[in-house]
Amino acid sequence: MNIGIDMMGGDFAPKEAVKGVINYFSTTENASSLFLIGHQEQIQKLFVEHNFQSDKITFIHAEQVIDMHEHPTKALKEKQQSSIAIGFHLLATGKIDAFISAGNTGAMLVGALFSIKAIEGVLRPTISALLPKENGSTGLILDVGLNADCKPEQLNQFAILGTVYAQQIFGIENPRVGLLNVGEEEGKGNLLAQATYPLLKENGHINFIGNIEGRDVLLDKADLIVCEGFTGNIILKMVESLYSISQKNNIQHNYFDRFNFENYGGTPVLGVNKPVIIGHGISQNLAFQNMILLAQKMAEKDVMGKMKQEFMA
Amino acid sequence: MNIGIDMMGGDFAPKEAVKGVINYFSTTENASSLFLIGHQEQIQKLFVEHNFQSDKITFIHAEQVIDMHEHPTKALKEKQQSSIAIGFHLLATGKIDAFISAGNTGAMLVGALFSIKAIEGVLRPTISALLPKENGSTGLILDVGLNADCKPEQLNQFAILGTVYAQQIFGIENPRVGLLNVGEEEGKGNLLAQATYPLLKENGHINFIGNIEGRDVLLDKADLIVCEGFTGNIILKMVESLYSISQKNNIQHNYFDRFNFENYGGTPVLGVNKPVIIGHGISQNLAFQNMILLAQKMAEKDVMGKMKQEFMA
Repeated sequence: MNIGIDMMGGDFAPKEAVKGVINYFSTTENASSLFLIGHQEQIQKLFVEHNFQSDKITFIHAEQVIDMHEHPTKALKEKQQSSIAIGFHLLATGKIDAFISAGNTGAMLVGALFSIKAIEGVLRPTISALLPKENGSTGLILDVGLNADCKPEQLNQFAILGTVYAQQIFGIENPRVGLLNVGEEEGKGNLLAQATYPLLKENGHINFIGNIEGRDVLLDKADLIVCEGFTGNIILKMVESLYSISQKNNIQHNYFDRFNFENYGGTPVLGVNKPVIIGHGISQNLAFQNMILLAQKMAEKDVMGKMKQEFMA
Repeated sequence: MNIGIDMMGGDFAPKEAVKGVINYFSTTENASSLFLIGHQEQIQKLFVEHNFQSDKITFIHAEQVIDMHEHPTKALKEKQQSSIAIGFHLLATGKIDAFISAGNTGAMLVGALFSIKAIEGVLRPTISALLPKENGSTGLILDVGLNADCKPEQLNQFAILGTVYAQQIFGIENPRVGLLNVGEEEGKGNLLAQATYPLLKENGHINFIGNIEGRDVLLDKADLIVCEGFTGNIILKMVESLYSISQKNNIQHNYFDRFNFENYGGTPVLGVNKPVIIGHGISQNLAFQNMILLAQKMAEKDVMGKMKQEFMA
């Protein structure tokens, strides 16, 4: 497997990306080949400082960087020598099997949609987040912000994409799919949830278990929860804030430690043809390491290929 | 002030309601007169057991009870001798100044809408919840479930109702109003949030400070947050679940103790003509006591009258 990494993305780039790469090689047997995209001189200097080299590293020089606050479409168009633009070029042409960046989220999404494109039959790709469950397990929630307004059919597709992901990445054979809602019974909810419920119920690709209320989001009722990206994004950011709140208040408990997004690395874009992982802007060492591991697993398990199969007639 | 209490509502009625009443009288100077509605013999027996009596108590016998799972409209129509139906009758005819119940939520909402009605000019009443902020203060979020689908104009009205409530009940002179959203800048969000932002910005009755993201919900950025009832309900129930999660995991910290809904009692229905407070089904002693205190404060401060003024031409 060849994994491409935007070394210039995120608040602590390229320093923390370099550390993450070194940790990945130090802790992973059968490591993949990594294509490190960014300002080559700057990056190589850091590896020299760490006294680290590997024949599994290929440096790909990128003269430009897309900043965190640049307009995604405009930046991608104008900065064709940026690390993100080069990464998507390598991915689209098959030089790499997966692409990771903690840089401009919008540019990553636009790049994914326009260079490697959505799986045929998928209305809109989605981004998901991991939810640390109270009993020690981990759940998935999607969409978490790519699609602020959704149609019922989109939520129905998110359920399929999430099911394949949970099967392949979490190793759950028959993942329980829940619909985020304000009540337990069918017929409850806003117009979207009311119209989505029957679609999920009749969807033969998934194991639908019914509605999931807010009080059950952090409990182990469902393996994956589908919702539109507005509510999903609010939940994701609230959950993330619990980690900083617990740190600030000196609440030492391994449950809240699991709300540390660094443990999870980044969020994959689901419903596109190849693995793309978007990291948090404040990603450090551990987050980069975990993003590489996730990209490797997604490529090895051919998660995207298995999603394609679900959308074939 | 005369406050009516449905003694038969909630999972622990009438026992915990009786305890709450006794605690209220034991701890409150200038206590209001309480009208205790329910099965008189059963309730009086409990007061005798506690060896408690007060000339500020009036017993109102109710032969029937609306169960937690009955259909609201049907139950209110068929059980005119129920404690909830009698309570709304007393409120509508001015015998009591506020009405409290931890019983069937739907019946309480239907009763509020049909017996005492929405304030003129208010499109839809709303229910709010308190948010314990990380810095020790308390915020308000509304709607939390009465209106799962909303129009921008409704959210704009929630902002006015919440502003009056925060001024009168929290004593905040110029409450900061935030719009729940997935990004900070104007123009972000789903179609509802995008259309609501300009209305809030131009609303002369409120102090609009912009968008509030999920990560800021538990921080002290805004005094009140407006959203549609779907997302608000999910947030409310997630926040409530944090208390039980922290209890179950032996996380002892006064921040999470503040997520105990018992501290807050119930949620008032805002936008109707008189104070109506709906308690959690699992309300106990402290919750009843706090609901009585809140009802008294709402009546004394004439919160509903001040809301009416805001909706006058």
